[in-house]
Amino acid sequence: MPSAPLNPPSIVLVEPQLGENIGATARAMANFGLRDLRIVRPRDGWPNARARATASGADAIVEAAQIFGNLETALADATLIYATTARPRGIDLPIVGPDTAARETIAATQAGGRVAWMFGRERWGLTNEEAIRAHGVLTLPVEPTFASLNLAQAVLVCAYEWRKTATLGALPSRFENDGPAARGDDMARFFTHLESALDAAGFFTPPEKRPSMVLNLRAIFQKMRLSEREVRILRGVIAGLERGARTKE
Amino acid sequence: MPSAPLNPPSIVLVEPQLGENIGATARAMANFGLRDLRIVRPRDGWPNARARATASGADAIVEAAQIFGNLETALADATLIYATTARPRGIDLPIVGPDTAARETIAATQAGGRVAWMFGRERWGLTNEEAIRAHGVLTLPVEPTFASLNLAQAVLVCAYEWRKTATLGALPSRFENDGPAARGDDMARFFTHLESALDAAGFFTPPEKRPSMVLNLRAIFQKMRLSEREVRILRGVIAGLERGARTKE
Repeated sequence: MPSAPLNPPSIVLVEPQLGENIGATARAMANFGLRDLRIVRPRDGWPNARARATASGADAIVEAAQIFGNLETALADATLIYATTARPRGIDLPIVGPDTAARETIAATQAGGRVAWMFGRERWGLTNEEAIRAHGVLTLPVEPTFASLNLAQAVLVCAYEWRKTATLGALPSRFENDGPAARGDDMARFFTHLESALDAAGFFTPPEKRPSMVLNLRAIFQKMRLSEREVRILRGVIAGLERGARTKE
Repeated sequence: MPSAPLNPPSIVLVEPQLGENIGATARAMANFGLRDLRIVRPRDGWPNARARATASGADAIVEAAQIFGNLETALADATLIYATTARPRGIDLPIVGPDTAARETIAATQAGGRVAWMFGRERWGLTNEEAIRAHGVLTLPVEPTFASLNLAQAVLVCAYEWRKTATLGALPSRFENDGPAARGDDMARFFTHLESALDAAGFFTPPEKRPSMVLNLRAIFQKMRLSEREVRILRGVIAGLERGARTKE
């Protein structure tokens, strides 16, 4: 798996109200490898015990969070800024989804920039004066009749898109048991075995249908893209059935 | 915005433990337009008051949820099934991310099929016997060192990908004030205005640099992809500066 680029975007929370949401935001960031949390005027002060408790496991992000008295200083080093909002009103900025924002973020950080994704207060988001500091408005492709996500959920979806795009979709899991794929000669031996067993069982009737029946059968197994191991298992199954048939005779 | 196709995947929760998580799952589904919730043997029985309370606003999904005594009946009509799990162990199925699952889901529903996405218990997920009912394993591209998402968050990310893919990324918001884009002749008049004002101000010195300075200036404004309205605003700014300069003379 490619390792993630070194510069995930910073998450800037503007006047977040509940410590629980700050903690859940830290967890969402950790899930997708974001690290830099910046908080502008947290309503309940700082440090916040509830933020730390909710972060369970992502406390390092909460501990390292930078606290700012105003938005300007939180964004001072940011060369590309997105304002996340559900309802952009009266702000004439391009509106993008998390996928476009992720692509532009990665391009900007690869060019040496620092990218900040701003999220507003739980109750009423960002003011237009705050949002206009951004280069673009980031919004989610939600169902319009049920558009509200909580703060940490919005961060989660954006963080997911960033990591997916940055790692080209690399998944942490791989086949555990797959091993090498079956080669052409493995498959040829398998089909020879299968078809001779079926010949012995009188499966191919009427005989003139044998060629097309063989083609159909082979297609079923070819589509499976079997591994060497799976071919061995299937040959064991055929051998077992052959023995069973002989025993009954 | 294109309307979402009519067949979002069904979400199948296998033995969910907490009503809160069922309610939060319903909210995540509603955010992205999923509707069909199926629950196999909910631990605390059904109906569940906490599920309904947590669903706030998505109660219709909770009310309409179908309850099953076993997984087989919950999956009876499903033609394509994904098992969502963080750690596929000993299951030799293809492993895909939410983006691939979303594409395959849409292809399957467009062909008239019914798709089910299975999610396991909060504590320990799905058994291998349950997961092997699926055609593929769905997992998230998480940071491996912080891989655990709660149930509703996993549903949220998957539902987001489905909707994004199904609607080609259509966003619920549009520019509110953008109006028509500026035409070539709008831009030409704007540049004539700007450059004559700068000529009058003696901006272009030395004169032999004027052509390259004009090119650089024009590039700045061309890159902005201005709307008609924005061009009017900028021409007002130039006119205002011209008046200010005349007043000082």
